[in-house]
Amino acid sequence: MELFAFMSSPVFTLWERVALWSVLGIAILGLLYAGFLTAEMLRHETGTEEMRRVSRAIRIGANAYLNRQFRAIVLLVLVLAALLYFTAGEQHVAIGRACAFLMGSVFSATVGFIGMNMAVQGNVRVAAASRSSFAKALKIAYRTGTITGMLTDGLGLLGGTLIFMIYGEKAYEVLLGFGFGGTLLALFMRVGGGIYTKAADVGADLVGKLEKNIPEDDPRNAATIADNVGDNVGDCAGMAADIFESYEVTIVSAMILGWASFGHKGVIFPLLVRAIGVLSSIIGTYLVRTSEQARAAMRAIHVGYTVSALSSIVGFCLVGFYYLRFPENFALPTWVSFGIPGLDMRPVWTTLIGIVLAVAINFLTDYFTAPEKPPVQFIARSTQTGHATTIISGFAVGYESSVWAILVIAVSIFASSLIYAGTNPTSIAYGVAMCGIGMLTLTGNNISMDVFGPVSDNANGIGEMAKLPPKARQTLADLDACGNTTKAITKGIAIGSAVIAAVSLFNAYITDIARLITRSYTEVAAMLSISEPLVFIGFLIGGAVPLLFSALTIRAVGRAAFLIVQEVRHQFRDPQIWAGKRDPDYGRVVSICTQEAQKELIGPGLLAVLTPIVVGLLLHKEALGGFLAGLILVGQLLAVFMANAGGAWDNAKKFIEDGHYGGKGSEPHKASITGDTVGDPLKDTAGPALNPLIKVMNMVSLLIVPFVIRAEEPTPLMWGVVLIGVLGVGWAIIQSKRESPAMRQWIATLATETFLADET
Amino acid sequence: MELFAFMSSPVFTLWERVALWSVLGIAILGLLYAGFLTAEMLRHETGTEEMRRVSRAIRIGANAYLNRQFRAIVLLVLVLAALLYFTAGEQHVAIGRACAFLMGSVFSATVGFIGMNMAVQGNVRVAAASRSSFAKALKIAYRTGTITGMLTDGLGLLGGTLIFMIYGEKAYEVLLGFGFGGTLLALFMRVGGGIYTKAADVGADLVGKLEKNIPEDDPRNAATIADNVGDNVGDCAGMAADIFESYEVTIVSAMILGWASFGHKGVIFPLLVRAIGVLSSIIGTYLVRTSEQARAAMRAIHVGYTVSALSSIVGFCLVGFYYLRFPENFALPTWVSFGIPGLDMRPVWTTLIGIVLAVAINFLTDYFTAPEKPPVQFIARSTQTGHATTIISGFAVGYESSVWAILVIAVSIFASSLIYAGTNPTSIAYGVAMCGIGMLTLTGNNISMDVFGPVSDNANGIGEMAKLPPKARQTLADLDACGNTTKAITKGIAIGSAVIAAVSLFNAYITDIARLITRSYTEVAAMLSISEPLVFIGFLIGGAVPLLFSALTIRAVGRAAFLIVQEVRHQFRDPQIWAGKRDPDYGRVVSICTQEAQKELIGPGLLAVLTPIVVGLLLHKEALGGFLAGLILVGQLLAVFMANAGGAWDNAKKFIEDGHYGGKGSEPHKASITGDTVGDPLKDTAGPALNPLIKVMNMVSLLIVPFVIRAEEPTPLMWGVVLIGVLGVGWAIIQSKRESPAMRQWIATLATETFLADET
Repeated sequence: MELFAFMSSPVFTLWERVALWSVLGIAILGLLYAGFLTAEMLRHETGTEEMRRVSRAIRIGANAYLNRQFRAIVLLVLVLAALLYFTAGEQHVAIGRACAFLMGSVFSATVGFIGMNMAVQGNVRVAAASRSSFAKALKIAYRTGTITGMLTDGLGLLGGTLIFMIYGEKAYEVLLGFGFGGTLLALFMRVGGGIYTKAADVGADLVGKLEKNIPEDDPRNAATIADNVGDNVGDCAGMAADIFESYEVTIVSAMILGWASFGHKGVIFPLLVRAIGVLSSIIGTYLVRTSEQARAAMRAIHVGYTVSALSSIVGFCLVGFYYLRFPENFALPTWVSFGIPGLDMRPVWTTLIGIVLAVAINFLTDYFTAPEKPPVQFIARSTQTGHATTIISGFAVGYESSVWAILVIAVSIFASSLIYAGTNPTSIAYGVAMCGIGMLTLTGNNISMDVFGPVSDNANGIGEMAKLPPKARQTLADLDACGNTTKAITKGIAIGSAVIAAVSLFNAYITDIARLITRSYTEVAAMLSISEPLVFIGFLIGGAVPLLFSALTIRAVGRAAFLIVQEVRHQFRDPQIWAGKRDPDYGRVVSICTQEAQKELIGPGLLAVLTPIVVGLLLHKEALGGFLAGLILVGQLLAVFMANAGGAWDNAKKFIEDGHYGGKGSEPHKASITGDTVGDPLKDTAGPALNPLIKVMNMVSLLIVPFVIRAEEPTPLMWGVVLIGVLGVGWAIIQSKRESPAMRQWIATLATETFLADET
Repeated sequence: MELFAFMSSPVFTLWERVALWSVLGIAILGLLYAGFLTAEMLRHETGTEEMRRVSRAIRIGANAYLNRQFRAIVLLVLVLAALLYFTAGEQHVAIGRACAFLMGSVFSATVGFIGMNMAVQGNVRVAAASRSSFAKALKIAYRTGTITGMLTDGLGLLGGTLIFMIYGEKAYEVLLGFGFGGTLLALFMRVGGGIYTKAADVGADLVGKLEKNIPEDDPRNAATIADNVGDNVGDCAGMAADIFESYEVTIVSAMILGWASFGHKGVIFPLLVRAIGVLSSIIGTYLVRTSEQARAAMRAIHVGYTVSALSSIVGFCLVGFYYLRFPENFALPTWVSFGIPGLDMRPVWTTLIGIVLAVAINFLTDYFTAPEKPPVQFIARSTQTGHATTIISGFAVGYESSVWAILVIAVSIFASSLIYAGTNPTSIAYGVAMCGIGMLTLTGNNISMDVFGPVSDNANGIGEMAKLPPKARQTLADLDACGNTTKAITKGIAIGSAVIAAVSLFNAYITDIARLITRSYTEVAAMLSISEPLVFIGFLIGGAVPLLFSALTIRAVGRAAFLIVQEVRHQFRDPQIWAGKRDPDYGRVVSICTQEAQKELIGPGLLAVLTPIVVGLLLHKEALGGFLAGLILVGQLLAVFMANAGGAWDNAKKFIEDGHYGGKGSEPHKASITGDTVGDPLKDTAGPALNPLIKVMNMVSLLIVPFVIRAEEPTPLMWGVVLIGVLGVGWAIIQSKRESPAMRQWIATLATETFLADET
């Protein structure tokens, strides 16, 4: 096969060729397993006609959203693919980069698309199974999640491996395209999904619960379906694309850095590690099964996780022990070589650090957001002194959780670098990248747990709308509670892995500059001293970006919610709909949500792509380096703050709703609702969108390095691009403040109604 | 005079000797002017016995606080002075450093102490004057502020000049002590004052307004006086010490960097600039007088500001033109030399950038917090949809304001560096330091405006408690509104100057390391590359510190407020007090506030001093460099967010209280109160304390450089110090969560009462 000409390169031993083909095989195995699970899931019964009807509406809405999203993006993706063609040097690499970009986009979109479709097929089956057995319902819900998990694993591994097998030593340049494609799609799906889900949620609640005083999932409310769709596009498609992208970006950076520091073995090892992770995830997720007792559910999930983790660790050690032999290496210390000449276990140790990091972050997220732990209890107590103290205590909890999360990440980076202490900077960066690989080893399990959340949430909604018997309802409620916990935990991993991936990419940035200006890595690194004014300025600007981005997305949610309210009110005016004789036009609300989410996406999207271009061209490579560092730091702090403060407020509300401090309807409950409502756009829109933002900006920076270097001697073209960039960012900021007169009018009229409803 | 032996050094021309003595003279002139204003102010009448009684109570309370504060600190200051003795090398420098530290502390304390005493003398005189004339009342209030302004100017200039005149080329090491002394005191006064003022405020409101339903300044409420005292200790003493410290630190860094890059002329020029600033402030503040119309008040203050700014600009240009001649310099471009050989106007241009920066920050603060501007209007509109949207919109406004503020600062740093482009790093840093000098030129005016706030606020309170006639009340209300605006504006300058000062100090850090390890500046700078794992880790930790610090101070306010509530309730149980027949024991509440503020100070204080020591000793100079960079970035973003979101919430509430959206008592008003209450601890406690935090950590880092370098070969002593540091920080975090069972009980019982009151 000519395509795989590189595979016959003499650098490979026979065993290595077999290993690479096996990795490819395991990637495909993962996809086949996803197919097997899909077939299994689809075989389960779908319950009553009523249940199917609700589920169908959700499915149609979700697909309408994604179709529109993809239609809107497809042109942009094609244009960018064409532009990317010009960023690479040699022609066949350029073609490769453009194709890889398309592949990355398509894979990311596929993960989101199929994942979401499985979720909306799974939800009704979970609801149906709940009538007979808790164990069965849990299994269906969890395995529905595993389908997406396996897709992520399989496609991520497939793409990386294929590119390496085809492009060999040139794979680096092609992988960049692959990473950028996945990242960009993830950003769009995160921001769009985040705006969609919160606009629908707020819109449905404002008209239904507050104005009309009808229950949350009342079928007459035209926004109900959009609300359920939102759970899928936000938590399911958005999150899956986001984690897929981290999965991809970490393997891309590990392969780039591995090739630079240890040659082909440095590339093959991370691929092998990933393959082991896929196998472990298959085993671990397959083992998740529980008894009929609800409280056993979390334990079952944890058992699956632990089995996967342990088998990965054993696998890493074995593969490392037999594969990582570098006879040319001089004597390494015993903790690295076990006294065996040439054995280098350092990559194994760094992946193990990654696994520990994942566990530590899970622990922290759980501590700061679980209802029974001190932080949420502190917020719950504070609800008693009113709205303001509820918010203030959330600040204290959120800020503190950011501190610990960043410390854990700092310690992991430190430990990974320490393992490579005394070697060259590229090897140290490789250590950090391998830590990221280790952290995402159990992606299959993590995504299973994450998607489990919206599936059970939707199943619970279907159960409510289709009026299932109490026992089934209890089963679904238990599943839902369990899903809330697992969903929250995954958020921490998504943020943490974004930071580690960004740090690895950052080193690729330096390596790339060094190559282009033919200086050593150390010389380039020296240019990026924080004492350099340009670096420091870039650094200040980079730190400001997450705040601006958050301000933009927060405002976007408000505007989109406004239009939903208008539409739902309009439909309520139809007496037949209000009487429940005719179904409202769910599709229209879904389509408005979709349209608005797309429109509101443009501003933040422009900001993400244009800011690094402007900074790079105008203030050069030093400033762009500082920019990335500032961005990573503030992005991480803000994302964790938003996720955990939001989660803690949410659970404080749930804790009160369970009957504490006066329970539902009490004043503390109202205060806790304020906390939850403040937290919602933070934890579901602004916060999660920061992960892909960090990575997109890193990717864009890497891609524009050649132009940034050339721009040190400015040309009219460069000034033109800078001008366009500044105008684009300016437009994004200005349009984020757009407020139609109708909207102001609406807010004014709403005021009285809302508060009237609130008082009752 | 043997003490001033350096003054006879041959480096000085006769004119330079004269100039230096003149600077000293102008510093003393500033102090004399402060004395003159004091005498003038004290001559004004003090009104009725009733008014004097209230004012006296405030004065006694304020002094009780400061006395206790100083007693608590004096031992620490002495111990630190002794420790500092061992951080310097040569004996006479070591003695100098220790003495300069004492001088810095005493000066900082004096500014706070006298400033506050003047404010509490001025308030009653303003209230008295309000009965006859608006113009007179305004003049007294403003000039009371000018006393503190002139003290700041005079003492800051005096200290720096004296140290240079005595220590000459060794001044650098001694100046560090001076800066550290001022900074540390300012941190204590900011944190202590911030906790005091908010604890008293919240405590007074919870019991008085909510539980007992009596007006805000009711004399039966034992916490009323403490509340008024709080305005003085927080806004007056705290802010004055904070700005004094920036004033001091910028001159310290300009002198250090000036000496390194341009010899003695580089030191004398900033001193001359400062002297011109003092003269301009005297002229500008003296000119502030208004007609009887309230709306003319802000214009009068602006006229004074503009006169000061213009005369400074003219002065800088003239002095620069005649003094900045460096015959040995090769040809400079025309915009620097005007074609005159050896003329170097660059330091002048950078100070002008500083003035522009100050104006730009004033403009931004005004834009984001003034009631009639779009951001506050946006929040005010959002109050109509409830508590949650009020908070969310404040987030969007606050985040965005941070972005612009940091951009303005980045542009100033960029422009200042650009002016020195092509020279060496020390000169570039000198440019940035001179920008800081320029920014704080009008410190006299700024502090006048700032202190004007609490003085008019207190005068208004006295007017209310002493039941002055309506016309006087209106005058006082107008003054108060005016003071709210001027007070807010100064906050922006305080934060911005902290960042510029910290950036200059950062360069001193590198210079110092270079000297100690005998490498070039460039070599050391190269070690601080952001791509270096240790730097990056330090950077992550540094970024986390402001969040941890904020979480600590926010919790501290809550705890202190609790004790106030307990005490006020206890006093209300006395029937005689409740009937108004006997004065409550104001002193007890003041003393509890004082005590708690001191106690709560320990945790944040330990964090501020110990964290850089632990990072430096454990992770070495590279990590400490990254730590400082991360700290500056996140500290700035968070401080501006807190100040502006808080200010905007506050003014949105005032806007609604002026009768918009339903006015007082309406649901939007309640939502706006929530916003204001959330904003209070952010803008008055956590946010302002971040300025001195940034500078203290920079100072500590500079002082421990020699030990950090030695710690690269660890000794048992080093491990011991690290252990103590970690234990100290850990203790601070744990104790920040301390909650007595009585407190939980209280929150539970309070809940019903609060909400009952709230409903009425």
